[in-house]
Amino acid sequence: MALLDLPDWERYAPEVREPAGFDAFWSETLAEAAAHDPLVDVVPVATDLALVDTWDVTFTGFAGHPIRAWLTRPAGTAGRDLPAVVEYLGYGRGRGLPHERLVWPCAGYAHLLVDTRGQGGQYGNGGDTPDPVGSGPAAPGFLTRGVTDPRTAYLRRLLTDAARAVDAVAALPGVDGARIAVAGNSQGGGLALAAAGLNPRAVALLVSAPLLCDIPRSVALTDAHPYGEITRFLSVHREAAERVLDSLAHFDGAHFARRTTAAAHFGVGLRDDVCPPAGAFAAYNVLGGADKGIEVYPFNGHEHGEALHSARQLAWLGKRFGDR
Amino acid sequence: MALLDLPDWERYAPEVREPAGFDAFWSETLAEAAAHDPLVDVVPVATDLALVDTWDVTFTGFAGHPIRAWLTRPAGTAGRDLPAVVEYLGYGRGRGLPHERLVWPCAGYAHLLVDTRGQGGQYGNGGDTPDPVGSGPAAPGFLTRGVTDPRTAYLRRLLTDAARAVDAVAALPGVDGARIAVAGNSQGGGLALAAAGLNPRAVALLVSAPLLCDIPRSVALTDAHPYGEITRFLSVHREAAERVLDSLAHFDGAHFARRTTAAAHFGVGLRDDVCPPAGAFAAYNVLGGADKGIEVYPFNGHEHGEALHSARQLAWLGKRFGDR
Amino acid sequence: MALLDLPDWERYAPEVREPAGFDAFWSETLAEAAAHDPLVDVVPVATDLALVDTWDVTFTGFAGHPIRAWLTRPAGTAGRDLPAVVEYLGYGRGRGLPHERLVWPCAGYAHLLVDTRGQGGQYGNGGDTPDPVGSGPAAPGFLTRGVTDPRTAYLRRLLTDAARAVDAVAALPGVDGARIAVAGNSQGGGLALAAAGLNPRAVALLVSAPLLCDIPRSVALTDAHPYGEITRFLSVHREAAERVLDSLAHFDGAHFARRTTAAAHFGVGLRDDVCPPAGAFAAYNVLGGADKGIEVYPFNGHEHGEALHSARQLAWLGKRFGDR
Amino acid sequence: MALLDLPDWERYAPEVREPAGFDAFWSETLAEAAAHDPLVDVVPVATDLALVDTWDVTFTGFAGHPIRAWLTRPAGTAGRDLPAVVEYLGYGRGRGLPHERLVWPCAGYAHLLVDTRGQGGQYGNGGDTPDPVGSGPAAPGFLTRGVTDPRTAYLRRLLTDAARAVDAVAALPGVDGARIAVAGNSQGGGLALAAAGLNPRAVALLVSAPLLCDIPRSVALTDAHPYGEITRFLSVHREAAERVLDSLAHFDGAHFARRTTAAAHFGVGLRDDVCPPAGAFAAYNVLGGADKGIEVYPFNGHEHGEALHSARQLAWLGKRFGDR
Amino acid sequence: MALLDLPDWERYAPEVREPAGFDAFWSETLAEAAAHDPLVDVVPVATDLALVDTWDVTFTGFAGHPIRAWLTRPAGTAGRDLPAVVEYLGYGRGRGLPHERLVWPCAGYAHLLVDTRGQGGQYGNGGDTPDPVGSGPAAPGFLTRGVTDPRTAYLRRLLTDAARAVDAVAALPGVDGARIAVAGNSQGGGLALAAAGLNPRAVALLVSAPLLCDIPRSVALTDAHPYGEITRFLSVHREAAERVLDSLAHFDGAHFARRTTAAAHFGVGLRDDVCPPAGAFAAYNVLGGADKGIEVYPFNGHEHGEALHSARQLAWLGKRFGDR
Amino acid sequence: MALLDLPDWERYAPEVREPAGFDAFWSETLAEAAAHDPLVDVVPVATDLALVDTWDVTFTGFAGHPIRAWLTRPAGTAGRDLPAVVEYLGYGRGRGLPHERLVWPCAGYAHLLVDTRGQGGQYGNGGDTPDPVGSGPAAPGFLTRGVTDPRTAYLRRLLTDAARAVDAVAALPGVDGARIAVAGNSQGGGLALAAAGLNPRAVALLVSAPLLCDIPRSVALTDAHPYGEITRFLSVHREAAERVLDSLAHFDGAHFARRTTAAAHFGVGLRDDVCPPAGAFAAYNVLGGADKGIEVYPFNGHEHGEALHSARQLAWLGKRFGDR
Repeated sequence: MALLDLPDWERYAPEVREPAGFDAFWSETLAEAAAHDPLVDVVPVATDLALVDTWDVTFTGFAGHPIRAWLTRPAGTAGRDLPAVVEYLGYGRGRGLPHERLVWPCAGYAHLLVDTRGQGGQYGNGGDTPDPVGSGPAAPGFLTRGVTDPRTAYLRRLLTDAARAVDAVAALPGVDGARIAVAGNSQGGGLALAAAGLNPRAVALLVSAPLLCDIPRSVALTDAHPYGEITRFLSVHREAAERVLDSLAHFDGAHFARRTTAAAHFGVGLRDDVCPPAGAFAAYNVLGGADKGIEVYPFNGHEHGEALHSARQLAWLGKRFGDR
Repeated sequence: MALLDLPDWERYAPEVREPAGFDAFWSETLAEAAAHDPLVDVVPVATDLALVDTWDVTFTGFAGHPIRAWLTRPAGTAGRDLPAVVEYLGYGRGRGLPHERLVWPCAGYAHLLVDTRGQGGQYGNGGDTPDPVGSGPAAPGFLTRGVTDPRTAYLRRLLTDAARAVDAVAALPGVDGARIAVAGNSQGGGLALAAAGLNPRAVALLVSAPLLCDIPRSVALTDAHPYGEITRFLSVHREAAERVLDSLAHFDGAHFARRTTAAAHFGVGLRDDVCPPAGAFAAYNVLGGADKGIEVYPFNGHEHGEALHSARQLAWLGKRFGDR
Repeated sequence: MALLDLPDWERYAPEVREPAGFDAFWSETLAEAAAHDPLVDVVPVATDLALVDTWDVTFTGFAGHPIRAWLTRPAGTAGRDLPAVVEYLGYGRGRGLPHERLVWPCAGYAHLLVDTRGQGGQYGNGGDTPDPVGSGPAAPGFLTRGVTDPRTAYLRRLLTDAARAVDAVAALPGVDGARIAVAGNSQGGGLALAAAGLNPRAVALLVSAPLLCDIPRSVALTDAHPYGEITRFLSVHREAAERVLDSLAHFDGAHFARRTTAAAHFGVGLRDDVCPPAGAFAAYNVLGGADKGIEVYPFNGHEHGEALHSARQLAWLGKRFGDR
Repeated sequence: MALLDLPDWERYAPEVREPAGFDAFWSETLAEAAAHDPLVDVVPVATDLALVDTWDVTFTGFAGHPIRAWLTRPAGTAGRDLPAVVEYLGYGRGRGLPHERLVWPCAGYAHLLVDTRGQGGQYGNGGDTPDPVGSGPAAPGFLTRGVTDPRTAYLRRLLTDAARAVDAVAALPGVDGARIAVAGNSQGGGLALAAAGLNPRAVALLVSAPLLCDIPRSVALTDAHPYGEITRFLSVHREAAERVLDSLAHFDGAHFARRTTAAAHFGVGLRDDVCPPAGAFAAYNVLGGADKGIEVYPFNGHEHGEALHSARQLAWLGKRFGDR
Repeated sequence: MALLDLPDWERYAPEVREPAGFDAFWSETLAEAAAHDPLVDVVPVATDLALVDTWDVTFTGFAGHPIRAWLTRPAGTAGRDLPAVVEYLGYGRGRGLPHERLVWPCAGYAHLLVDTRGQGGQYGNGGDTPDPVGSGPAAPGFLTRGVTDPRTAYLRRLLTDAARAVDAVAALPGVDGARIAVAGNSQGGGLALAAAGLNPRAVALLVSAPLLCDIPRSVALTDAHPYGEITRFLSVHREAAERVLDSLAHFDGAHFARRTTAAAHFGVGLRDDVCPPAGAFAAYNVLGGADKGIEVYPFNGHEHGEALHSARQLAWLGKRFGDR
Repeated sequence: MALLDLPDWERYAPEVREPAGFDAFWSETLAEAAAHDPLVDVVPVATDLALVDTWDVTFTGFAGHPIRAWLTRPAGTAGRDLPAVVEYLGYGRGRGLPHERLVWPCAGYAHLLVDTRGQGGQYGNGGDTPDPVGSGPAAPGFLTRGVTDPRTAYLRRLLTDAARAVDAVAALPGVDGARIAVAGNSQGGGLALAAAGLNPRAVALLVSAPLLCDIPRSVALTDAHPYGEITRFLSVHREAAERVLDSLAHFDGAHFARRTTAAAHFGVGLRDDVCPPAGAFAAYNVLGGADKGIEVYPFNGHEHGEALHSARQLAWLGKRFGDR
C-alpha cells in the first residue's frame, strides 16, 4: 500500500458511533465473569531455557471458560514481586511454545502470554484454548461468529478473556499488582485496548497496529483479512448490516481508549493495509490518559517498527515501571 | 490448472486407508441421531413464484440439532407422492433464498435443499442453521474444527446432518420414499456420498466435483481452499498429523462410495484444482452399485459441466425415477 | 475493492457528453432494422422440465440479422396473454441451455432470454448467435470491434438487437404487449437501458450493476475487464481517442436513461470494481420516468444483491404488472 | 515457469494427429486465393529515417482480402534484387509504425512486415488490416473465431494471408525471388511455419517460440493466453471438443514443418510457459529439410534469446543468402 | 492503474525540497571526474548490419571509472560531423547488443548508447560495465546502495557517468559538438535530465516516463519497483529516513530540470504506476528552457507512446538539429 | 506449493557436480583470510535486558574485511567457558537489534549472531556490515554479484566470513572452543554448511531449509527469490551459463556436507518452494559425519518447524554439548 495521506493525523478525530448501553453491556459481562475465581491452574513447565522459569497458567475468561497462558519470568525470582506484562496475540496465532517470546522476561518482567480461544490453527505453533461456544452462520474466521448480537458475539468472549487476564496476573504470586501493563500487536493491540478500557488494574498500555479500531471506517478502507471477514459476512447477510455494525461497536477500541487512563504507548505504520492507520489514530487521539506517546513509521506497513519498536517499548515501560 | 495427466483414470485405484472402527463409529453416531424424530417443523413460505410451493423445513441432524432446509415442489401437488431429490450445498454457502434452485422442482421432483450448519457467511444469500458446538483451535473455515478427534469433528456433525436429511424427506407427506436421490456439487458432492453410504434409503446418487474424497491425496495435490484448510492446520499442529488424518479418514467419500449400492451419476472436470479429479475417481471407481456413469469434462475446472451436466442429470434421473 | 466514497450518490450528477446527432443516428439505425419482420422462427424445445414450456426463438436484430433467444413460460398457458420479461445477458455469456434461468417463468411471466451475438465462448454453456460482421483491428473481446465509427461499431449492432427483442416479444402470441419489461445485469443492464431508451414498448426496466454507463468515467475508474478493453484499445490506438470516445457515447446508458419513461428498478454494489457504481448512478439519476427505485448494497461488489435482489425485483415488478 | 524436464528433446517425437483431407483443404484454399493478383498497392511512405526506404504495401490474402504490410529496404537500392525476409507478427500486435523493426533492412534485406488481420488492438502501435469476416460465438481473442469448422476458422484466413505474403514479396520489384525467407516469433513463428509449408518459394525459415504447434499438447500444458483461448472455448462448448480439435489440426505447425524443405533455424526457451517448448520440438524434429539448426535457451521463457537470437539469425541467414 | 486524477497537470507545481549544498556537491563531483580524459578506447565492432558502423566506446565516468557504450552511425559517414544523441537505459538493462537500437542511427544521428554501471543482469542482453565500488547494507537493486550519504551513493556515480557521456561524445571524431541531445526513458529519462542539468553541452533533452523525479512524492505514490526499493530500504532503516531522503534529493530530476536550458521534449502516460506521472510534471513544469513540449498519453501506463512517441521525437529533434 | 513427491527421500542421491580445484580454491581463500587476526573489536552494548549481556563484535572475514556480529550470553557468566552457537542469517536480513534472538542465550549458550555483508536492507531491522567490493553486471540481489568467476563472487566472500566467524568465536574469552556449533536457516543454513565444511572447529551443525544446496537442481525447480536471481542472471547472460554454474558449484552445500564430520541436525518442509527440499536432502544424504538426524515437516513450506524445530534443536544440542 502506498503511503496513506494522513498528513494531519494528530488532529484526526473521526466520530466513532458508540452503541447505546455500551457500559451496561460490559458491566454485566464482566460481573458474570468475575463470579469465577481468576486462576484455575498454574503448572510449571520444563524447557531447555536456563534463564527463565515458565508455567502453564489456566485462568477463567468469559463465563468462567478456562483460558490458557504462558507465564515466563526470570529464573529464581519467585520471591520478588515483579512488574508484569500481559501480552495478547495477533489474529490466527495461538500461544505457541513457551520459548517464542523472551523479550519481556529477559527484561525482568513477569510475562503472561495469553492464548486466544478457538484460534491457533493458522500460523505459528498452535494454541491450546478451545472456544466452547458454537455460532450461527459466519464467514470463515472468527470475527463474525455470533456477530448479529453483541451478547452472542465471539468478540464478547474474546475481549472478556483479555480483561480477565489482568485479574489473573494480579492473582499470581510474585507479581506487583500496581505495575501491570497490557500489550499487543494487531488483534493483540485491540485486545490490549479492551483490557485497559475494561480493567483499571492495567496501568500501562502498549499497542501497535491495532485491529478493531473504528471498525466501520477500517472495513471501508481495506479488503484485507481479517477486517475483510466483516465485509464478506455483510456481503452475504445484506439486511443485517445495521445490526452487525451496532454489535461490532461494542468491541471498538476507540471506545475503550476513551475509558482508560493507563499510560499509553502506540506504534503505527502509515502503509499498513491490514489495519489501516486511521484506526490507530482514532483510538490514540481519544485516549483518556495524559501520559501517551506514539511512534509513526512512514515507510512501514503492518510490521511497523518490529524490533525497533520493541526496543522503544522496553525503554518506555522501563521508565514507568522502574526496578525489576 | 493445466490438464492433469490421468489418461488412464478408469483404472485409477489408489489405496485410501480406512480407519479402524469406521462402521462402529458411524453406527453409533447414527443411532444417537435416530433417537430424535426427524421432522421438527414444516412451515409454508410465501414466494412470488406461482409454479412452485415452498416450505421452510426444520429437521433433526446430529444429536438432534435443528437443521433447516427448503422444500420446494410443483404447486398444487400435495396429493401426489413425488420422487425426491435431497441436495447438499457447496462450501461456504447457506441455503440462501427459496427461489435460487428451481431446476429439480420444475422437473417435477420434491426438492429438499439442505442448509449447512455454521456455514452460509461466505457466498450467496446466507444460511439459517447454527452449529451449536464450539471447538478447539482450528484454521479459519470449518473443516478443521474439532478435527483432532473424529468424535468432536465438525465433519461428523455435518455428515450426520446429511444422512438424516434423507430420513427427513422420507418422513414428509407427498414423497415417494422408494425414489429418493441425494445430490450435490463440491462439498455437496462429498455430503451426498456420505448420505448414500450411511442411509440406504438413498437409492440414487448425483455427485459432481466432490470434496472430501481421498483426502490425503487431495491435500497433497492442491493448496486451494478448502482442502488448504487442512494443510494449514497441519502446518501449525505439526505433531497432530497422524491423528488428524486418521480422524479425517472417517469422513472420506471413498469409504462411503464402497458402502452404497445406489445408482450413481458423477461429473468431473479434469482441470479442477479445487477438488482434484483424482478424488472423484478414487470414489467413483469403488462404488458399490452396478448402475453408474460418469461425465468427464477435459477442458473444465471446478465448474465441470455446469448447466450441461445439470441437463444430463435430469435425463439420467428421469430414466430411473420415471413419472413425476 | 474497498468501499467507494460516494456518500452523496443521490446528488451525483456528472455531465456525460452526448454526441451530436445521437437521436438521428438511432432513428436511422432502428428504421433500417424495422424493415425486417421481427420474428423468424419459433420452435418448441423439449426439456425435462414439466412446469414450463420452452421455445427456441429467432428474431431479427440489426440489419435483419437472425438473433436467437429462449422463450420460457408456465406450461400450458398458451391461451393467456402474459406479461413478459425480456432479459439480456452478462458479458461473455451466451443464452446457454433453456433451464438456466427459471425465476421469471416460475413467477408467471413469459421470459425471453436474448442471446448475445458473437459472445458465448467465455463462460457458461455457450450461445448460438453469430455476429456476421467483421471488424478492423480490435482489442480481444467485443467492445472495441469497429469502434472507431459508431456506424461500424459492434455495440451498434448489439444495442439494436436489444431494442428489437422488445418488438419480437410483442409479436409473439400469448404476450400482453402492454406489460413488457426489459431486464439485465452488468452488460445486460446496459442493454436493458438501451432497449428502454430506444423502444417505448418497454414500460418497465430492471437494471443491476450496469455496464456501458458514463463510459469515459468508468474507463477512468477501473482497469477491469470489460471496460479495460477500451483502455487497452486506446493505449494502442492513441491518436483515435477522441473519435472512439465520441463513438462510444452513442451507446452510453446515461443517454438512454434520460430518454426512457419506463418504471425503473436498479441495484448496485458500492464495492463494484467491474462496473463502478458511479456509472449506475450517472444513469439512475437522470432517468426520464417518475417511478423509480434503487437498492444500494454497500458491502457488495459486482454481485450486488444476487438472489435477494432478484426477490426484490419479483416483488417490484409484481406490483406493477399485476396478475399473471 | 521452472525449467521443463525435456532432457531428451532431440528425440522428442510426439504423434500429432493429421486431419483427413489436410492437403486437399489447403490446395483448395490456396487456389482460391491465387485467383487474385498478389499486389494491390505499393505506396512510398515518408519517414525520418534517411538510411531506409519504406512502402506501404497492400497485397491480397485469403479470398483476395486486402492485407497491409510495411516494405523497408536500404535507401537507394531500387535497382538491386535483394534477398527478402517476410516477417509475421506476434499475437495481438499490428504492424505498428514503419520504424519499429529495422534490423533486417539494416542488414541489407528487403523486409516485408506483414500485418495481422483483425489484430493490432492489444499491444504496440496498432494495425491497419481488418478481418471482414464475422464469426459465431467465440472466446475473447482470435484463435477460436469460426473454429468449429476449418473452412470458417479465422486461422484459415490468417495462414492463407501468410502464405500469400510470400507471393506478394516475390512480385515486388527489387526482390530476388530465389532468396526469400519467412520469419516470425510466437504467433509469427506459427505463421512462418505455415508459409513455408504452403509456399515453396520460401526457401529459408526462421522460427522462434512458435505458437500453433502440437496444439492439443500445448493446450494441455499451459493455461496462458493465447492457447488458453482454446481451453476457454472448449470449457464452454464442451460437446464440440472433437470437432474443434480436428479443425485446429488444419493449422498445426507440426504438419507444415513436415511439408517444407526450407533451410530452418529455430529458437526456444525451455522455461516458456506461453508457447511450451514441447510445441517447438514437435515441429523442429519433423522438419522436411536437411539444413536445420536450433538454439535452446535453458534459462529463458517466451523471450528466449532476444537480441542474441536475432544476431544468430543474421549470421545464419547471411551464410545462406550471401551478398546483399 | 486506473487513470490518475491530474486534470490540471499544467499547473501542478509541487515543492520539491532542494538539499543544502546541491550545486557545490555537483561542482566538486564533476570537477573530480573531469580530471580524467573523457575517452579511453574506441574500438570498431563487426556486425551484420551493412547500413551502420558501430564502435565499442569506453569513456571515463565517475572517478575516472571506465564506462562502456555503443557508438552507432550511418555507415561511411566518418568524414561528416553529425548531430549526436546520447541515450541512457532503463533500469536493470545493460547496453545489450549493438543492433538493438537502430532508430537514431537510421535517422542520421551519431548515437551513443550508454551502459549502466553494475546493472545489466535483469532484462535484455546484458551489460559490460562493472561498478567497482561496494556499499553498505542495501535493498536488492541499485537505488539504495550507499544511499545514506550522497557522496557514497550509487546514484552519484551513475549520474556523473551520464554527465560525462556528453563530454565523451563531444570528444569523438565526426560529432558536431553544438548539436548534442540527451535522451532516455524511465531511469534513462532521469539520467538524461541529470546530464542536461549538469552538462550544458547537452542542448536538447528527450525524456519519457522519467524515474528519479520528485522522489519523496513518487515513493509515496507507488510501491512498484524500482521506487519500491527506497520504500523497502526505509522500512528497514527506519531511523535513517531523513538522511536518506536528503541524500536522494541530490539526484532528483526536478532540480536538474530547473538548471538546464536545453530544448526539451517529454512524454508521459497518465496511468503510469511505475514512474507516476506526477514526477514527470514536477520536472517538466520547472524546466529552465523556453523551448519545451510534452506528449500526454491518457490511456497508457509506463509504456506511454512507444513507437508513436519515438516518431514524434524524431520529428521534434529533426526540426531543431536540421541536416544530418 | 502442493506436497512434493519425494516419497523416497532417504535414498535420494543426486549427482552434484564438484568443480575441479574445489579444495585448492578454498585452501587458498581461507589461508588469505587467516592472515588477519580474527577479532577486531568487542564492545559491550547496553540493552534493557537484564538476563543477558551483549557485545558488538567485529571480526575479520574475507580478505580481512570487518564483519559485525552480536555476542549475547547469560548475564554475569564472564568467568565460565560456555559452549557457543554461531548463527547465520536468512537472505536479505541484517543482524538487526541485539534482542531479536534470545533463545540460545536463554538456553545458556554464548551466541554469536553474524551479520551478512551488504545485506540487511530488505527485511527486519537492518545490518551494519558493508561489502566493500563492487561487481560487474548482476541481477538485483546478491547471489549473482561477480558470479562469472568464483574468485570475484560475492558468495566467496560471504562463505569465507561464515568460516571465519567460527575462528572469531573461538578467540573470544569465555567460550569453550571444543563445543562450537554453527546454525542457520535458509541462507543461514547454506552458510552453516559452508562453515562446518570449511572449519573443523565447528563440531555441531544445525541446518534448516538451506539455500545453496544442489544449486542447478534447485534453480530448475523454483522461480522464487533468491534462487530466481540466478535464473534471471542466466536469462540475460545466456552465453555465460556454463561458467556461472561452475562458479556457483564452489559454493554448493552438497560439497561442504561431504567434507564436514560435525554432528548434524536438519529440518525441512516438504512444501518448501523457496528452497526446494531436494536441496536439503542432497546435502543431508552425503553428510560426512555419522551422528545426524533430520526432522521432516510434510505440511510446511519454507517455515518448516518454526518454534517446534527450535525446541528440537535445543534438546538435540543440549544432549551433545551438556552443561552450560
